[in-house]
Amino acid sequence: MFNPGSVAVIGASREPTKVGYTLLKNIINSGYGGKIYPVNPKADEVLGLKCYKSISEVPGEVDLAVIAVPAQAVIEVSEECGRKGVKYLTVISAGFKEVGGEGADRERELVGIARKYGMRVLGPNCLGFIDSYTPLNATFAAVMPRKGRIAFVSQSGALITAILDWSIKRGIGFSKIVSLGNKADLDEVYFIQAIGEDANTKVILLYVESIERGREFVNVARQVSMKKPIVVLKGGVTEAGARAAMSHTGAMTGGFTAYEVAFKKAGVLLASNISELFDYAIAFSNQSIPAGSNVAIVTNAGGPGIITTDLCLRMGLRLSSFSSSTINSLRSKLPPAAAIYNPVDVLGDARADRYRSALDIVLSDEAVDGLIVILTPQAMTEPVETAKAVIEVSRKYLGKPVVAAFIGGGAVGEAAEMLINEGIPCFDLPERAVLALSGLCKYRGYLDALEKAVERYVKFYDVDSSRAREIISIARSDGRRVLLDVEARELMRAYGIPVPPASLAKSEDEAVDAANKMGYPVALKISSPQILHKTDVGGVALNVNSDAEVREAYRTILSRVSRHAPRAMLYGVTVQKMVPRGREMIVGLTKDQVFGHMIMFGLGGIYANVFRDVSFRLTPVTPSEAMDMIKEINAYAVLRGIRGEAAADVASVVNVILRLSQLVQEVPEIVEMDINPLFVYNEGEGCIALDVKVVFS
Amino acid sequence: MFNPGSVAVIGASREPTKVGYTLLKNIINSGYGGKIYPVNPKADEVLGLKCYKSISEVPGEVDLAVIAVPAQAVIEVSEECGRKGVKYLTVISAGFKEVGGEGADRERELVGIARKYGMRVLGPNCLGFIDSYTPLNATFAAVMPRKGRIAFVSQSGALITAILDWSIKRGIGFSKIVSLGNKADLDEVYFIQAIGEDANTKVILLYVESIERGREFVNVARQVSMKKPIVVLKGGVTEAGARAAMSHTGAMTGGFTAYEVAFKKAGVLLASNISELFDYAIAFSNQSIPAGSNVAIVTNAGGPGIITTDLCLRMGLRLSSFSSSTINSLRSKLPPAAAIYNPVDVLGDARADRYRSALDIVLSDEAVDGLIVILTPQAMTEPVETAKAVIEVSRKYLGKPVVAAFIGGGAVGEAAEMLINEGIPCFDLPERAVLALSGLCKYRGYLDALEKAVERYVKFYDVDSSRAREIISIARSDGRRVLLDVEARELMRAYGIPVPPASLAKSEDEAVDAANKMGYPVALKISSPQILHKTDVGGVALNVNSDAEVREAYRTILSRVSRHAPRAMLYGVTVQKMVPRGREMIVGLTKDQVFGHMIMFGLGGIYANVFRDVSFRLTPVTPSEAMDMIKEINAYAVLRGIRGEAAADVASVVNVILRLSQLVQEVPEIVEMDINPLFVYNEGEGCIALDVKVVFS
Repeated sequence: MFNPGSVAVIGASREPTKVGYTLLKNIINSGYGGKIYPVNPKADEVLGLKCYKSISEVPGEVDLAVIAVPAQAVIEVSEECGRKGVKYLTVISAGFKEVGGEGADRERELVGIARKYGMRVLGPNCLGFIDSYTPLNATFAAVMPRKGRIAFVSQSGALITAILDWSIKRGIGFSKIVSLGNKADLDEVYFIQAIGEDANTKVILLYVESIERGREFVNVARQVSMKKPIVVLKGGVTEAGARAAMSHTGAMTGGFTAYEVAFKKAGVLLASNISELFDYAIAFSNQSIPAGSNVAIVTNAGGPGIITTDLCLRMGLRLSSFSSSTINSLRSKLPPAAAIYNPVDVLGDARADRYRSALDIVLSDEAVDGLIVILTPQAMTEPVETAKAVIEVSRKYLGKPVVAAFIGGGAVGEAAEMLINEGIPCFDLPERAVLALSGLCKYRGYLDALEKAVERYVKFYDVDSSRAREIISIARSDGRRVLLDVEARELMRAYGIPVPPASLAKSEDEAVDAANKMGYPVALKISSPQILHKTDVGGVALNVNSDAEVREAYRTILSRVSRHAPRAMLYGVTVQKMVPRGREMIVGLTKDQVFGHMIMFGLGGIYANVFRDVSFRLTPVTPSEAMDMIKEINAYAVLRGIRGEAAADVASVVNVILRLSQLVQEVPEIVEMDINPLFVYNEGEGCIALDVKVVFS
Repeated sequence: MFNPGSVAVIGASREPTKVGYTLLKNIINSGYGGKIYPVNPKADEVLGLKCYKSISEVPGEVDLAVIAVPAQAVIEVSEECGRKGVKYLTVISAGFKEVGGEGADRERELVGIARKYGMRVLGPNCLGFIDSYTPLNATFAAVMPRKGRIAFVSQSGALITAILDWSIKRGIGFSKIVSLGNKADLDEVYFIQAIGEDANTKVILLYVESIERGREFVNVARQVSMKKPIVVLKGGVTEAGARAAMSHTGAMTGGFTAYEVAFKKAGVLLASNISELFDYAIAFSNQSIPAGSNVAIVTNAGGPGIITTDLCLRMGLRLSSFSSSTINSLRSKLPPAAAIYNPVDVLGDARADRYRSALDIVLSDEAVDGLIVILTPQAMTEPVETAKAVIEVSRKYLGKPVVAAFIGGGAVGEAAEMLINEGIPCFDLPERAVLALSGLCKYRGYLDALEKAVERYVKFYDVDSSRAREIISIARSDGRRVLLDVEARELMRAYGIPVPPASLAKSEDEAVDAANKMGYPVALKISSPQILHKTDVGGVALNVNSDAEVREAYRTILSRVSRHAPRAMLYGVTVQKMVPRGREMIVGLTKDQVFGHMIMFGLGGIYANVFRDVSFRLTPVTPSEAMDMIKEINAYAVLRGIRGEAAADVASVVNVILRLSQLVQEVPEIVEMDINPLFVYNEGEGCIALDVKVVFS
């Protein structure tokens, strides 16, 4: 598609206000070297090219047809394209799924025709695409971008138009630009894969509002991320999660969580606004990936040096500790008043040569992974000569990225432009330079994680998946979507997850019997598929210590529950052996519509909803992913043991996470699940699932 | 100082590379209308003006002397200025406190001379100052700023130089610019007060690395904030808190916390980088303060509308819910495909008139406090005409701020400039527009809080401050800086803060006696001024239930403590009545070197250090401030009672906070203090201070 031998423009127009005119003109003006065939039944010639009545009249082969006819005519035209043997369609025309109703039908029909003839479709309802290297501008945008190393794939066509105009002023160049439109056929997954192979592209930018093929996205993006960075701006992050959640895990999983989790798994960087998206891109398209996150700052002014230090630390970078030989060299080369520790202040009267010495010394230090040069225009400052010094010195240290903030306007303009032209990202404010460098460092972290993640998945053979499926199918045949306590507990047992002894009692006598069998103290809990939060309706009694207390608790629970939840169907009361109190954690599962099952781990108990101290992974998870999940939460400090307290049995939690991961692989009907609390005991003493909720589809 | 009748430049030079030349030239070129006297013993004329050998030779009165002679000569020259009756000195010269040693002595001498003659001093080691309205540019900067409504006061001179250059390109104008230098005399507090009165300034920007007069800063900034916004960029926020803390409260109070707390109390907005500082300033210098934080978005493109919505919600703005009449008007005026709910999408083919209708309808809705207009350049777009529409319509709704993001470069450049010239902040990307509007809304919140805060402080008369002082002085005479358990508990009793019954036992027998007096169960805790964290050294036994257990616990504690803390001086063991477990909270006090005493409230127990879920206020606090402290923490949800659990006795916590606030007013020697845990019981059941640590100076 990006490099066709010939292009037909169906709906080419002689009317300069028409899209079909701008399209053809852009293709011609882009310097495209292949054959161009305007198609329009009402014209003989458009923009100096012979015009054909229909695509079938075109003499040679047509690789790509760009369609800009009214929606009603698209189907017929596409059919003709198919018969002609066209390989790719780019449908600019609007009036499809985005208008609903018959538009949606029309879109389905379009896809059907494409499938029939083996054509691939970009759009409909899109701006088209650009390849600066072919070169080919198959859009109706008013501006042709500069040539560069950034590919930009966007679900919003207007964003492309605006960014194209904006990029000219900023000097940003593109390799490819793709407007996805309605994504009837070709989507972001396709283009990430395709552009992943493109030698002209160093970084892929993506603006999406939705992703449909979630798992494919993760798999493809993960592969491509290992070769080149992908940066995503996700529109609609604050959308209220409309789905009514039935579990804690569900409630803590907003619509955006799944995207974040998926992006993380795929090694995709998330930008939080347009400026970040492009500041990252500028860094990636020019600079190398550092070995780590230890950076140095060289400045000619104290204040901006302090501000830059603050920004670095806030964005997760560390300031390198220089070696003693670096310190000595700086001391000998710089004036006595200069600051020779990081940040290095070469002082306000520094000329280019002093910058050069400092940069060279600092970059040669092994503890420095990357560098930020700050320049403020003062009386003695030589911006252009300093820019030259930065360019020269940075070339000596190829694996170490250098970014610059030359703060100012006119006085530093020429120097900034020189830096940019030579591939050193130069910004007008330090915050942008720090962000750009932090992007490079983050990507290093992602690469390391992706490389580490080749580890195998474990499989437990001591599980009983057929019993698990049976439990679900019995509950389903009972017309339920939620397992009863006893069922959920049995499901856990089938997967080797420890639960306390318990049994369902349907009368006071049965409850007393059960309590005597397991020994006091016991807990009593209402069992009803309609009641998910038992404490809320007075359905729980703890520390019950004698037969008499069991009877009393049984009656109290039934009377309170029937008052608070009069419509709930009651299956009886679960009698459960009281177990010692452990650290209260939560482990849960949820199924995202786009990305599938995710597993959650975090702090349980009354503070679960207050702090939402949780971590997520897409399933299946590997042992090291499970361990990372545990380490990621803040409360890990407590699990590790603070203030001389004993450490928790983290290995037993890893075991639970991995078994749950396997459970949803083998029983994918489970859509939501909570173990809350999971009591975690001291090292070597395991953990136990106190309360288990399971919702299935 | 800003509007002197005459200015002398001491050290005026004929050498264009000298600061004394640039200074004089800037004063002349700025169009200053008063008398200008160059002073230089070696010249008769400088830059066409008669030059005087010394200030005493100057014929008329001199209001301001700008001094740019070598540091060694500054003292003599200042003395002469004093004798001449000069009112203000601006000392450009470096070589004072910033070089340490004799420089610091020289600075003290300079201040002494100023005091003697009643002169005020700006600097030394500064760039000077600018007043665009006088007009007077008394700096050696290369660039004269545009005239505007922003005052910029900076501790970094280089930042001013850089920003001046940068501001020209951005079209940002200033009323006053002040370089504080070493702040030997005049500091940010002085200038905030002075510029607070200045009719030409609408917003005050401040860059500081340190504040010395903390309480004065808060008081002055608080007064000025009610009239005009102050925005601060604080350099050095990530500095490691060097002070070794002796309490939890101290440990959770980094060097920057005190600044944040003080800025909040003063109603000062905190910017996190240079770009934010100026985007806030641009909004404040042109737009009015909205009544609330409900905003509307009008856009001609879906993607940017979604991005802007995300940004608004992330920055704490809310999207207005339009009234039904607004919806109806929009429906009748806009094409059927337009989005008529917030954000309003007038569609890609919108010309200026459609924007005008939509803007007018939306701004007339009472639920809209402010508006963001987004424009992307598309085929039919009329940027300039749309800009005119924005200007016209916004003038009809004066109390409602309007900011714009015209995304692009060349295609929207003229329109953007027109908006900026007419006082509508227009940015190239939506994130900056949202930030600017959010600044206006935040300031509204601060104004409301400042107005609310006129409430009186309460004073408790049932406290025994002389007993409190006595407790401290006894401990001090004992050579200690930390109170013993029993003393701390008595201090609490003196201030009406509930503590459990307890007494210090110096032998097993005394411990048994004490336990019998108060009744079982009891707790035993080691009492030693050297041991702050008793559990860490095995110094605590809980739930001790009999005489025999008391004896055993007594012995165990002593043996464990003498093993873990062999050097600690042991005063005995405190026997304390066990009290029922409540919600574990923490209340603390700390004394910041700059801002004085701060009170802290938050989550106690093992998660205290994990989540640092705490709030701070400078003392003294009012009842509503105390209540706000409680509501601010995340764990407030738990105090309020979640899931049908009983609410906590919040009123009793307010009481504790207010009493502690009064305690440090009356006994200011207290520098650190923890009540950890404070057990808080159900509503009406109060709270109790379980463990109290008090450190005094």
